Parts: sequence; structure tokens; C-alpha cells
Amino acid sequence: MNFIINPKTLKEGAFFYREKEAYSGVHKIADKVLKDIESVFGVRPGSAEDYAELASSAVIYGTIGRSPVLERLSEQGLVDLNEIRGKNEVYAFQVIDAAGEQTGKRLVIAGSDKRGTIYGLFHLSELLGVSPYVDWNGIKPRKQEEFRLDADYKHVSKEPSVRYRGFFINDEWPAFGTWCHQRFGGFNAQAYDHVFELLLRLKGNYLWPAMWSARFHDDGPGLANSELADEYGVVMGASHHEPCLRQGEEYKYLRGKDSIYGDAWNFRTNEEGITRFWADGLKRSGKFENVITVGMRGEADTAIMGKEATFADNINLLRDVLRTQNRLIREHVSPDLEQVPRMLALYKEVEPFFYGDEQTPGLIGSEDLENVILMLCDDNFGNLRTLPTEEMRSHKGGYGMYYHFDYHGGPISYEWVNSTYLPKVWEQMSMAYDFGVRDLWIVNVGDIGTQEFPLAYFLDLAYDFDRWGTGAINQTDEYTRLWVERQFGAACEAQDVANIHRLINGYTKIAHNRKPEAMNADVYHPVHYREADRLLAEIGQLMDLANELYARFDEETLPGFFSLVYYPAMGNLNVHRMQLLTGKNHYAARLNRMEANWLAEQIQACMKRDRELVEEYHAIDNGRWYGMGLSEHIGFTRWNEDECKYPVLMHAMPAGKPRLSVSIDGTGQHSEGSGWHVNQLRMNFRQPDVTAASFTIYSISDLEAPYEIICETPWLTCSAYQGVLNGTSKAADTITVRIDRSLMGQETEAGIAVKLPSGVCTIIVDAKLPELHGWPANTYVDVDGYIAIEAEHYFAKQDAMHTEAGAAQPSAGFQAIQGYGRTLSAMKVFPTNRYFTAGEDAPYLEYRFVVHEAGGYEVELYMQPSNPVTADNTLYYGIQANDGQLQIWNTVSRGKKITDSNAEWAAGVLDNIRRHSSIVDCRSGLNTLKIFAVSPGFVLEKLIISPAGKKPPVSYLGPPETYYIGENNQ
Amino acid sequence: MNFIINPKTLKEGAFFYREKEAYSGVHKIADKVLKDIESVFGVRPGSAEDYAELASSAVIYGTIGRSPVLERLSEQGLVDLNEIRGKNEVYAFQVIDAAGEQTGKRLVIAGSDKRGTIYGLFHLSELLGVSPYVDWNGIKPRKQEEFRLDADYKHVSKEPSVRYRGFFINDEWPAFGTWCHQRFGGFNAQAYDHVFELLLRLKGNYLWPAMWSARFHDDGPGLANSELADEYGVVMGASHHEPCLRQGEEYKYLRGKDSIYGDAWNFRTNEEGITRFWADGLKRSGKFENVITVGMRGEADTAIMGKEATFADNINLLRDVLRTQNRLIREHVSPDLEQVPRMLALYKEVEPFFYGDEQTPGLIGSEDLENVILMLCDDNFGNLRTLPTEEMRSHKGGYGMYYHFDYHGGPISYEWVNSTYLPKVWEQMSMAYDFGVRDLWIVNVGDIGTQEFPLAYFLDLAYDFDRWGTGAINQTDEYTRLWVERQFGAACEAQDVANIHRLINGYTKIAHNRKPEAMNADVYHPVHYREADRLLAEIGQLMDLANELYARFDEETLPGFFSLVYYPAMGNLNVHRMQLLTGKNHYAARLNRMEANWLAEQIQACMKRDRELVEEYHAIDNGRWYGMGLSEHIGFTRWNEDECKYPVLMHAMPAGKPRLSVSIDGTGQHSEGSGWHVNQLRMNFRQPDVTAASFTIYSISDLEAPYEIICETPWLTCSAYQGVLNGTSKAADTITVRIDRSLMGQETEAGIAVKLPSGVCTIIVDAKLPELHGWPANTYVDVDGYIAIEAEHYFAKQDAMHTEAGAAQPSAGFQAIQGYGRTLSAMKVFPTNRYFTAGEDAPYLEYRFVVHEAGGYEVELYMQPSNPVTADNTLYYGIQANDGQLQIWNTVSRGKKITDSNAEWAAGVLDNIRRHSSIVDCRSGLNTLKIFAVSPGFVLEKLIISPAGKKPPVSYLGPPETYYIGENNQ
Repeated sequence: MNFIINPKTLKEGAFFYREKEAYSGVHKIADKVLKDIESVFGVRPGSAEDYAELASSAVIYGTIGRSPVLERLSEQGLVDLNEIRGKNEVYAFQVIDAAGEQTGKRLVIAGSDKRGTIYGLFHLSELLGVSPYVDWNGIKPRKQEEFRLDADYKHVSKEPSVRYRGFFINDEWPAFGTWCHQRFGGFNAQAYDHVFELLLRLKGNYLWPAMWSARFHDDGPGLANSELADEYGVVMGASHHEPCLRQGEEYKYLRGKDSIYGDAWNFRTNEEGITRFWADGLKRSGKFENVITVGMRGEADTAIMGKEATFADNINLLRDVLRTQNRLIREHVSPDLEQVPRMLALYKEVEPFFYGDEQTPGLIGSEDLENVILMLCDDNFGNLRTLPTEEMRSHKGGYGMYYHFDYHGGPISYEWVNSTYLPKVWEQMSMAYDFGVRDLWIVNVGDIGTQEFPLAYFLDLAYDFDRWGTGAINQTDEYTRLWVERQFGAACEAQDVANIHRLINGYTKIAHNRKPEAMNADVYHPVHYREADRLLAEIGQLMDLANELYARFDEETLPGFFSLVYYPAMGNLNVHRMQLLTGKNHYAARLNRMEANWLAEQIQACMKRDRELVEEYHAIDNGRWYGMGLSEHIGFTRWNEDECKYPVLMHAMPAGKPRLSVSIDGTGQHSEGSGWHVNQLRMNFRQPDVTAASFTIYSISDLEAPYEIICETPWLTCSAYQGVLNGTSKAADTITVRIDRSLMGQETEAGIAVKLPSGVCTIIVDAKLPELHGWPANTYVDVDGYIAIEAEHYFAKQDAMHTEAGAAQPSAGFQAIQGYGRTLSAMKVFPTNRYFTAGEDAPYLEYRFVVHEAGGYEVELYMQPSNPVTADNTLYYGIQANDGQLQIWNTVSRGKKITDSNAEWAAGVLDNIRRHSSIVDCRSGLNTLKIFAVSPGFVLEKLIISPAGKKPPVSYLGPPETYYIGENNQ
Repeated sequence: MNFIINPKTLKEGAFFYREKEAYSGVHKIADKVLKDIESVFGVRPGSAEDYAELASSAVIYGTIGRSPVLERLSEQGLVDLNEIRGKNEVYAFQVIDAAGEQTGKRLVIAGSDKRGTIYGLFHLSELLGVSPYVDWNGIKPRKQEEFRLDADYKHVSKEPSVRYRGFFINDEWPAFGTWCHQRFGGFNAQAYDHVFELLLRLKGNYLWPAMWSARFHDDGPGLANSELADEYGVVMGASHHEPCLRQGEEYKYLRGKDSIYGDAWNFRTNEEGITRFWADGLKRSGKFENVITVGMRGEADTAIMGKEATFADNINLLRDVLRTQNRLIREHVSPDLEQVPRMLALYKEVEPFFYGDEQTPGLIGSEDLENVILMLCDDNFGNLRTLPTEEMRSHKGGYGMYYHFDYHGGPISYEWVNSTYLPKVWEQMSMAYDFGVRDLWIVNVGDIGTQEFPLAYFLDLAYDFDRWGTGAINQTDEYTRLWVERQFGAACEAQDVANIHRLINGYTKIAHNRKPEAMNADVYHPVHYREADRLLAEIGQLMDLANELYARFDEETLPGFFSLVYYPAMGNLNVHRMQLLTGKNHYAARLNRMEANWLAEQIQACMKRDRELVEEYHAIDNGRWYGMGLSEHIGFTRWNEDECKYPVLMHAMPAGKPRLSVSIDGTGQHSEGSGWHVNQLRMNFRQPDVTAASFTIYSISDLEAPYEIICETPWLTCSAYQGVLNGTSKAADTITVRIDRSLMGQETEAGIAVKLPSGVCTIIVDAKLPELHGWPANTYVDVDGYIAIEAEHYFAKQDAMHTEAGAAQPSAGFQAIQGYGRTLSAMKVFPTNRYFTAGEDAPYLEYRFVVHEAGGYEVELYMQPSNPVTADNTLYYGIQANDGQLQIWNTVSRGKKITDSNAEWAAGVLDNIRRHSSIVDCRSGLNTLKIFAVSPGFVLEKLIISPAGKKPPVSYLGPPETYYIGENNQ
């Protein structure tokens, strides 16, 4: 007999056995699960404190040490609590026979601790198909007639991979703050109830609350927030600059001339006041479960001491602060300091104080930091920085990582909607784990809204690293598939689910290449390589897809789709579209093309759409997310939204006489055919795999103007040979030129004459094919004046080897991370924390290419903008062409710190790329190029090879991949 | 008894005695004068071949050698023909008693030659107040009741200062060509009748006809053009590349495979054909009065030989050509070659062939050039280039100058409307005369239309150099006054005449600073020094003035005013206005200012106005000038009009929340008051003579947004203290700040707080006055971080001295040319052809200025962009600060030729300025600076002194003059 849930069984009796000994928070969660069950079966299940009232299929939940019934079942041998006892956040989930006088089945959910039980309870909801966003986003589960578990079903959860896993509500104005105040009247327990539920359903356990105008421990009202968190087992932390369970806003609120805490956030001049402030915080909140922030920074995320203070002054201050705080924690929280979770953030200026320098020892190794979790931080843009060295990894307190999905700071803030791309989170956070960062993962999600998807991934990665971490390369796509299926499988068809998956991948990849706030008209090139047009086409397809999907949902299911997918997707895509159109508008207007005016209308439509999207997000589902879309997000000119500028609309005034201009698409070449100026353009058909190219004729006036195309070459055809433009209803015609190489004979060049009102422009078509000499597949042959290679398309690769049982085995080597990087994929060495010596043990990638002239060539590598993992600011790679010298390069400028004023770093995080060039000697003909891994963090995306001093035309993503010989030797 | 003309006398009998012996052309001119008289008195006067039919006041006109009556009067002792006999183009104009049987008075107009008589006849029209534009522009004379000449009135004209004086109709399509064809059916004698009349009435005698699709000697039809010219005494020339009385188009028309002239414009491969072509031209047209172009260039204004030809090849070719041509002229025109006026143009590539180089002797001094006028040329933009050295001036043929009021060529053509400024023509052409260029002056007037005013000046200068030339410095204003009075005195009041004068001065000065075709949005700075706003204000006043004047004229008199003044003035001003507004529009849009959208509307209005102006010019007076306005004139991007671009209109989209921004007018400083970014601006009140400054608040959105100004400083007042902008009807408020220094006490700095929606911006007012230490007048004191000096405001000047009769007399020295240069005036040394040695005999200007810190200062001179007058490409000046080293600088890059690819030259002619900087050492406190004249052509306009490396903000005209101590020591 199975464990069966259906409306009938639910009506038979109580479904949940509610032990009075259980944690109150566990009961509260159980009530939420009962609501989940009701939403699945349409019947509200009951719970009973009297065991006798249970239905034939009923659930017994409890926590070791707080559950007599579990002890009894254990004694009866029905469950084995030893499997979970003493473990962290583990639950057993097991079907047993109803014992004693009862018949039927019992589902036992036994937690090793409070959170273990809670995760176990939510595991039931999960099995029933209830989304973790059931409360936060109103995702409705699929209605079911019946749910069964095998009679011997048993599942024991693993301990989470990372000890503290949570998120940070940050920069809560105007979005989260408005939402809280509008819906709940403040940052109170009513609001946090939803936040805690979201956290726990996503298997997190740790939270940094809102902190810019909020005081978590006072806003409940009173201690209600803290008490609720503690009931739910939510471990509270506070941001990096808020020590001793006090929030920054609290001091602002309590300080004053006559305050017992004094009137200076200064441990030197107001030691007594500050110490008392901290002591009272610990007294008040120390009884709850916390990770206590230690250390001290300035108020509101600033440096602690003035510019006049020396390095040593700062370090000494921090030593004194830590000593005092440890004393206070011993006094007011627990004399067993080792048992009190504490955290020091190595953030901004604190990091150098930790490491010290040659003259001044840092805090590293200080006894005051024993057992303290050392929290590291990314560079605020999702790229890790200094990580624990092998030696440091033995620190007993372990390490934490503060990561960002949202950031208020330079070079450009991003706080509006989700712009996080899972492969990046995987690549970075799995490396963090590999480097020993396993005790605390916290991610800044800003206002939460629209960050739900990457947040789930972050917390799942932290919860089950075995399943999703380093070992699971290229699984982010599978994660996304499962996530979409889980949220929307109930509401729509399989095809729609696949399309939602495609939409999420599509928009997050685009946002990964450029965040909306940092997007502007000058990012993508308006014409080179048709870069803007190709992206616009992709955006157009994704937007169509999004709108088709939108129409699939009904009133009840739309809000979930809208908030989780449609709104962040359309928001991102629409801003990108607007800025791309603006780039094209500016380009067209500067050439007096009438097309500019049509483009200007489209830009305005995008701006209108942007506002409509936010309005709909604020209105949908009765204003469920009202306020969450308030962040500025267009045209940032500063690090924050101040002085942001909307796209400038450019209009071209029609010329006074009929004029047309012709351009070769994908290039900056243009001509009006005047005999005095440029009247020859070049079209490239030298790529053997290219059979079509195009040119476009544009109106320069709003007068009727005819054109005629004369192409007498039998091996070329044009899609049209004449036409008339009028600059208004018809402002441009694109003519496709097709080649039939079978008709070419000995000819390799031809001319297409384009007769325009101002003259004749001749398009010289160069169709000379390269000789291929039987070169093998993946050999790149220069037909464009440069070569562009996707890193994944190496000719050969060499792993590092080690000897095992007498045989050489690969110990490290490059692997492709699919979809990562700005174009195709990226190559990275695994394991991620190894150093190599180029030319000795270093893994390398070998590329083959053919150039026509010997000489110096520039090889430009496009790399993920990794920061060095050590404090010496080096990230090396090696490069060698043919048998030439092996060059070792540092991809970052030594001595440059990661600050807004470091232009190299700033460009890297905005562009999501770092470029590094070197010059190698090439032969005429076939060449080989080896790229060697040296430092951790080297992630190669693309290579551009061009004659020294002759770079290919500029663009944002770089030239698309050029011709290479495929498998069939073509 | 006076010589009286009134309706009664005119009806008494014939007014003109028409001798049959007279030149037919003289009679034709006399008929035009009769029409003039009719237009003055309302009565058509008659003429009679019978002496007896003359009225009591009648005119006897004739030419020595063609007038029995004059011989008779001479014999009678009534007139003294010896006063004019043998002279060139001279007339006597004398009232005598009617002799013999007649009573009354006779006005005798006796010409030394045909043109002398014609000028004499037109002198009568002139005395009667008839405009020289009576025919060309339909200017109506003032009606008169009676005209009297004293009984003993006598005037004998001077010989013209320059032998051949004329203009060149060039680049005749689309304007002049359309006009000719529309009104007369071709470039025929009907059309040229008007052109000749204009030339002669303006006292010219020489013409280069249209030549791009026209063949003057064929278009008459047949020889009618040539014959009419000869009748009128108009000496025909042809442009620099059209030798032997043949036009370039003729060869194009006659050449061919079977042509007797061959099919190659090549004296080496087709010597026979070319020689025959020339011979036939001389046979056909040699009988008329000509200046025969000799030499040879390529077809259509290009070089004669290909790139492979050596320098010597070219020179040898020219020698052969000249020898052949001289032979042909001897054979077909006159064996007395010395008597045949011939001209060789030293234009473009011909110039180096003339001078030769160290290896290869040039044509200079060649016997083939004996008695040939050597025609020099400006740089196409009104700046003379290489001039005859003292040694060269002895060349018997003399020199000519080809000058431009209109040009089709690089860097940017100017062919639309008049953009010539008289002081420049005076400065340049008087220097030409001083350097011995006195035999031929020809000016390119393009299509003639709108060039009438500077053309009159050019011809008057050539006709009467004594009156208007070098000796008459600063008389262009008087010339303009007289010209306006003569054309419009009849049609309007004295005040209007003065206003027309002001309008002409105003618009030509603006066009002198930048020609409309070369004007674009980036020329003037949109905000620095309020440069754009100040010019816009000036343009606004001039346009208002023009429109007031327009309303003064009636239907009959308007066309003359419209064509001569209103249309070129408004055309120029409107294009300038449009481009200035565009600069402001772009600046505003880039800052998201809503003002941009209002500016965009204004730009469109200007574009509309531009079209309306051309349409009115084409329609007025029954299409009298139809076609003359067809030249493109907006947004040239190339040397010709191809691919020209209209202003790009930029629109700002309103921000999503109320935002305002504040700017300090005249500077690039702006702020929204954000606490994170720029929120302090600086306002300068350090100039003792400045009592007011302003700032402006701009809307960034279309939402209502309030501002508040808090100024608690008693010595500062603001014109408003609060306001609300809405971005549409009210998008900007300018606040004037006034200072009352009497209330300042010890204070020198104050803050004005401007409360904006995004924060508070503080304007720091710096009102610290400099200490003046009793420095004398014209001492400049740095209060802006730099010093700007108008050259005229020197502290002292030193002339070169020579000893005359034992006493030192000034022999050369700087004089101010009023109104010349881009701002106030210009300083130039007279005589204009002297060389000096700085520190010895060189005249100099001494400036005094005070800076606060000792150190290196950059002294940037703004100079008229003169070209060197000698072939060695040097134009030196000297500079010395205090007792420092005297530095000698060449203002032009040696070795750079005047070609479009010489960016230095190109910038100079477009900007109408050349800048040259040097570094001098200054003391803290008072400094002196001497600027020494060295080479001819040095014309100083302005000096900017700034600490080395710290230039003042960029602008087109440069910083306006800074503070200096005035006469009253303030």
C-alpha cells in the first residue's frame, strides 16, 4: 500500500500531526505546506495534536530533540534517526506503516535540526509540484487528483555544501522600500514573512536585511522581525559594515549630544559610546541565531579612518575593535566564543588591512580572528578577486563570499531587473568553492524582484555543490530547463516551456554582454559586421517569442510568468533595442539618411514600452510588486542614476534635391556616386562558404529618386535591378547579391554599377577564393585581412599529465564552457585552482591559421575579465607562434587596484571582456599558435589575428568568426 | 546760364547729338543714357544727327579721332582735347556755350578713346543719380524736376589706376546658366548685353565669360557676343587655361577622330591639331579687342602633363607652347607683338614652372614672356600669395591679379551669395597694387548675382586707387555709405540708408568670419563665452533690421533692395542662425535639456526660411534673377556640394521624473545638485568692470519642477529667487546676478544655493578684485586665468624711422584697420611691402599685462591668414617679453604648399584666422610684450596670453577681450 494523498484521504482526518513540542516556526512552515496541499488538491487538509485524529495517509514531522513521536518511532525501529542525528540541516523523508492501532501510511519528515525539518516539509511541497515561488510570485501548482509515494519510499537529504547560504536586500530605495511601505506599512514582520519563506523554500538559511533606512531589529515592530526569523530558523547577518548585531541606521537614530552612545562613529574618540552601542546590540539580539559581523568600517559603506591615518593606524584600530567585540560577545552572547558564528568582511579598504604589507603585518593570522569566517567579495560585478591561497585555506573559521546580482556603485550601478547569466555564476562560484570558500555565500539581490531565478541557482549551487558545482560542467542549461519546467510546467505546454527556457537564455546572455544601465548608443557598432542589425534581429525574435508566450497565460497564471520571466526579459531586450536603434539613428542622421526619422519613431516607441512594462509590473496581480520596478535604468552617465540621459533622437532634414546613397552592408563604406569623391566600394566574396552579400540604397531626401543596378557578370545576380525611393514610405532598399561560383571560370573580380541621381557608384566584387592545399579541419585561412577564431575551435589541445599507476593521466586541461563568454563559448582549465609553467606542465590550446604575408601579427585574446586570485595582481598566460619565443603576459596592469578609477577594470566589467594583445612572427602560409594556461582565472573566449598595425574595423563583440576549414575539408 | 535738364528743355529738341562717325557702341551706350534720363525726368529725350535739332541744353559726345564735332569745338577753342588726347580711357566733361547759330548750353563729353567716351556718358547718368545697377538690378533713380550744371562746369577724368579691370563669370551652373537659358535662351548676346552694361557702368573694361558649358565666341549666336563686346569696348579675356582666344569647351566640341584639330589636348602628341586650333581661334577673334591668354594647362582647370613628366619636361613644354603661340599671334593678329595684350596666368602648377628651382631654370625672364602680363592669383580665398619681388617688378608686361569672391574648389567652395568683406579686399588688393600689380585685375564673381556690391568696390579700387587705395586707410566704410546712398537714397529715408549700411557691414563681417557653406554646428562654441548666443543676438538684430527695411520698399523699389542687400544678407544670416541653433541644439540634447526640442523647431524654421528666400529671389520682379540662387550652400562635407548634409536635429526625450539642471552662462559648468557629483559651480566677478553675470536653470523632463535660490549675501542680488519649469512652455529660466561692491566690506566670496529637485547646487561667487597699483591705461590684469588683448589696444607703438632733412621721421609703422579681422580690428605695417629686422629697424607694438605667477606663458597671436609674398614660404614676426630673448617665428610651415591637403592653410582660409603660439617668460606682476613686424603680410588681430599648458576654454573667435585699465585708471 502506498502513501496516498487525494481529496478523499485529506477529508478522512487530520493530515499533519502537530506535536506541541515542535518548534513554533516549524508549525508555521507546516501551515504553509498545508496551504500548498490545498492548492494542489482543492481540499484544505487539517492538522491535529491528537495522534488518533490522523487520516489513513498522514504526515509526522519533527526535529530531533523536539519530537517525542520521532523518538518513539525510532525506538520502534520504524525510522533510523541516527542517519541524520548531529548533522546540519538534514532531513529524513520516509514512508512507514501507521503503527499501533492505526492503519494506513505515515510519511515521516524528520529533521536533524529546525531547518532540516523545514526543508523536509518544503520537500513535500516540492514533490507535489509546488513552486518555491508559490508565495512570492503567486505561481500556482498543477491541480492533482492524487499523489502517491511508494510504501517503502525513503530519502535522506545531504548536508548542504555551504554552511550559510543567503541573500542581501540592498539599496532598497526606491523599489523594495516602496513595496514594503505600500503593501505592509514598513519593513516589518509582515513583509519579512514573505522574504523568509522565499529564502527557506529556495533552501537558503541566511539573510542580510534591508539597511539603508531600515532597522531590522526595531522595525518588526519592535523585535518582531528578529523573533520571526529565529522562529523560522533564518540566520540573520548584517552587511559588512554593521558589527555586533547593530544596523548602521540604528546609530544614526540613537546618536546625539546627550546620547549614552555618544555622537561619533569613532572608536578612538568615542570608545565608550561605541562599545556600549555594540554591547546593547548583542544583549538585545544575541539570543537569536546570527552570524555576527565583526570589525568596523565607516558609516554607510565608507572607509573608517580619514586620509591622514596611516596604514598601521588603521590596522591597529581594527585589532582593538576586534578584541573589544570578542570580549563583548563572550560577555553577552556566549562565553564559548568558538561556538558563536562571526564574520569579518574583507571588503574594499579592509582587504589590505587584512593582508598588511612588507612593513606592517596585517590582521591575517590574528588570534582575534580565530574561528571568524573571513568573508571575501567579488568585484561587485560578479568577478571574484583575491581568493584564499592554499596556505590560507587552513583558517579554522573558513571563508565566505559576498557576490553581486545587483550593485549600487561604480563604474555603473545595476539595480533594475535581473541581468545575471548563470554560466558566469557557475564559473565564478564553483571556482570560489574550489578555492575553499565554503562557509558562507551571500548574494546581493537588491530589491529581490526579478532576481528570483538566479537567486534559486545561487542557493541551489550552495546547497548541492555535488549536483551543480565544478564537477557538473555545462549544466546551467539543464538547471534552467528544470527551473522553467517547475515554475511553468503546470501552466503551459511543453513547447512553451522550451520557449521560456530559450527566452531566459537569450535575454540573460544579452544582458551578460551588456547590462541595460550600461547600454548606450555607442556600445555596439551601428554597421560594422552588421553587429547592431544581427543583435536587433535576435532581440526581435526573442520579443516575438515573449509576446507569444504572454498570450498563452491566463489571468491567474500570467503574474508569475510576467514577474519571473516576461518583465525582466522584455525590460532588458527593450532597452537594448532602444539603444541599438539609437546607434543606428545617429549613424543614419549623420549621413543625412531619411531612415533616421523612422528610427527615431521606433526609439520613442521603445521608451513608451519601457514605461508600460514597469507600469504593468506595478499593476499586475493587484499591485503585488508595486514599487519593485522603480529603479532608473536608462542612459547612466555616472556611477549612479543621477544625471542619467535618455537617448538623443536625431532627425535628418530632407535634402533639397533627389539624392540617394549606397552602402555595403556590414561596413562603413558609402557613396553617392559623385565623380569627385568616393565612387567605388568593395564587396568581399573571398570566403568560400559565403554565397550572398548585400548593399543598401538610402534616401537622402524626401523626393522621388530612382536607382538602377547594372550587373553584366553572369556569375552574380542581384535581388533587384531598379527601384525608386521616396525617403518617407520607402527610405531604403537592400539588394542581395548572390554568387554562382560554377559560372566564374577564370574570373575572380567583377563590377556592379549602381546608378544614382548624383552619379554612378561601382561595387567591385572580389571573389578570389583562397587555395586550401589540403589543410586539415579547423585551419583558419585569411580572406578578410584578419582572422577571428572562437576559442573552442582549437586545432588541438594538450592537457597537463601526471603519472598514476605507471601510466600518464591527464591531471588538468582546458574544457569548453558552452554558451559562456560573449559569443560562442569559453575555454578554461580544470581544476580551477592550479598554477602551471608554460612550456613545461601547462595545458595549452593549439590553433592553426594561414596568412599570406610573413611578418609581425597582433594576436588579441578576448578573455572573461577575471581578477587575479592572489594579492600580487597577476594573471598570466603564455603564447607561442610556430617555433618562436614563448611569451608570458600578465593580462592585468600590475599595481592597478580594483577601483572605479581603474579604467582597465571598469571597461572589463562593463564590457564583460578583457582584451590583451601581443605580437608574434608569422610565416607566409600555415602557422600554429599555442595559448598556454598559467594562472587560475584565465578564461579564453576569442582570438583575433591581424597584421601588426592593421586592426579590423572596431566593434563591440569583435569581428565574427572568419573562415576555417570544416570537417569536409571545405 | 547753367546747363539745365528738365522736362521742358528735354521737349525743346534733341538732347543728344548723334554723330554718324561715332562708334556704334558709343551710340548704343548713349541710348542707354537717354533711357536713364527718361527715368529721372519722365520725358524721353531725343537724339539727332542734325546739329540744328538740338535743344537749348544738349549733349555733344564723341571720341577723339571719331568725332568731327569735337575737332571743330577744339578748333574753336571751346574744348581742349589735348587734356585727354593719347590718354587711356579718359573723358572730359565740360559745359560750354552753344556755339554758332545756337543758343543755350552744350555739355561736351569727349573721350580719349571709345571707353573714355562711354565712361563719360555714364558719368552723366551718375550725376543724375542713376545707379550703375539701373539695368542689372532695376534700381530706379530719384525723380527730378531739374538738373543743373554750372555754366563753367568742367571735369576731366583721371586715367584708371589699373589697365584691365574686370570680372569672371565662373562655375555658371546651375545659377548663371539657368538664368541665361530661362531669360534669353542661352549664353547669347542678349544676355551679355546686360553683363557688358553692368561692367561698363561700374567702370570695368575687361571680362572673362562663362566657360564651363559655354563658348562665348559661338554662342552669340555666332560671333554676336564677340561683336557686341567689341562695339562696347569690352576687352575680352579668357580664363587662365584657355589660350589663343579659344574656350576650353570649344576643343571639347571640335575634337574628334576626324577633326582637323585632332583628338588630344596634348601639344606633344597633337602639336599640329592644337596649333591649328589656336591659329583658327586667333584668326576668328583676333580682330576684336582682347587680352590673349597664352600658355597651356590641362583641360577643365587641371595640370597639363601627367605625373610621370618631370619638372623640366613641363617647363620645356611651356616654352615651346609660348613660342608657338607668339608666332601665331604675330601671324594672325599683329606682327607687332608688343602691341598685342597677352597674359600668362601663374596659377596652380604653372607657378613653380615660372620660378623654376635650383636645378631647372623657370620661365621667369624668358623672352617669350616679354610684354606678357604675368597674372598672379590669390589662394582662391581672397588671400594673396607670391607677389613680384622688387627685382621682378621691372618686367615690362606688368602684373595681373586673379582674385576670388566666389570659388568652386577646396577646402570648401563658396558660390551661393556674396560673402565678401570690403576691408579684406582693401587690405589685400591695395597690397597687390603696392607690390606692382597694376596691369590687370580680374575677380571671379561666380554667377554675378548678389556680388554686385563688392564687385563695384573692386572695380572702383582698380579705377581710382588714389581715392580708395593704400593711402585711404579705413575708407571702406565711407565707400559703403556712398554706395548705399547712391542705390537707395532715392527709395528711402536717411535713417533707412544708415540702416542698410549697418546691415551690409553686419552680414559681410559675419560672412567674413565664416562663409555660409563652411558654417556648421561645430564652428562656434555653443556655450563658452556665450559665443553662440552673442552672435545669435547680433544676427537677430540684423534680421529685424532687414525685415523693417524690407517693409519700407514698395513693389517697384523692393526688387533692387532685395537682390542687392536683403537676399544676400538674410541668406547669410539665416544659414548662420540655423547652424548656431544646431550647435546649441546638439549641446542641449546631449545634456537631455528639453530646450533642445524648441531649438529643433527653430532650426526647421530656418531651413524653411532658406528655401523661401531663394524662391522669392527667383520670383521677384517677374523672375528677373530666376536661377541665380540655385547653388547649394548648407553643410558642405566635401570641397564641392556633393554629399552635403543638412543639420541633424536632435531631440531630447523627457526624463521620467522632475529634474532640473543649472549652468553658469558662458561656461561648460553644469550640475543637477546631486550630492554624489558636481554640485559646486563657480561664477567669476573678478573683473572690476563686470557688475552682472547669469546662470540658467534648464528642464530635464516635461514634468513641473520647482527651484529655489537662496542668496544671503547682501552684496549680491538675483533677478529671481524661485520658479517652476515644465520643460515645454517653460524649459529654461535665466537668473541674472548683480553685484553691489559698495556693500562688500572685506568679503570677496559668497555662495548662492540653488535648490533643485535632485539636490542643491552651490554657486561660489568669486568677487576678489585685482590690486591695480596705479598701473597706466591699457595695462591688462589677469582676472580670468588668461589675458585676451585686441591688437589695437597696445600700450605703445614704435615706428621705423628714417632721417629726412636731418630729422628722424617715421618711415613705416603699424596702423589699425578698423573693423578688419574677426573681432575688433587689425594692426598692419604701412608701407605694405617693406621687410624689417626685429630689434633693429622693425616697427613694433608694445603690450603691458599683469600676471600673478612668474613662469612660462603661451602667447598666441591671431593673424589674418596671409600667405607669404615670396616663394620661400616665410612670413616672420618677432616677439619679446620684458628683456627676454627676442624670438623670430615663421607663421607658416615652411615647405607646405597651398593645396587642399595643407590642413594649416585650409583651416586658415575657412576660419579666416591663423594662430601662432610661442612661450615667453613672465614675471609675477607687470610685464611688457613687444610684437615686431618682419615680413610683409603680417596682420595682427588678437593676442591670448595664458600659463603654458593651460589654454582658456576653446571657442571659434577666441576669448573676448579681458579686463584692462581704462583711461580713468579703472
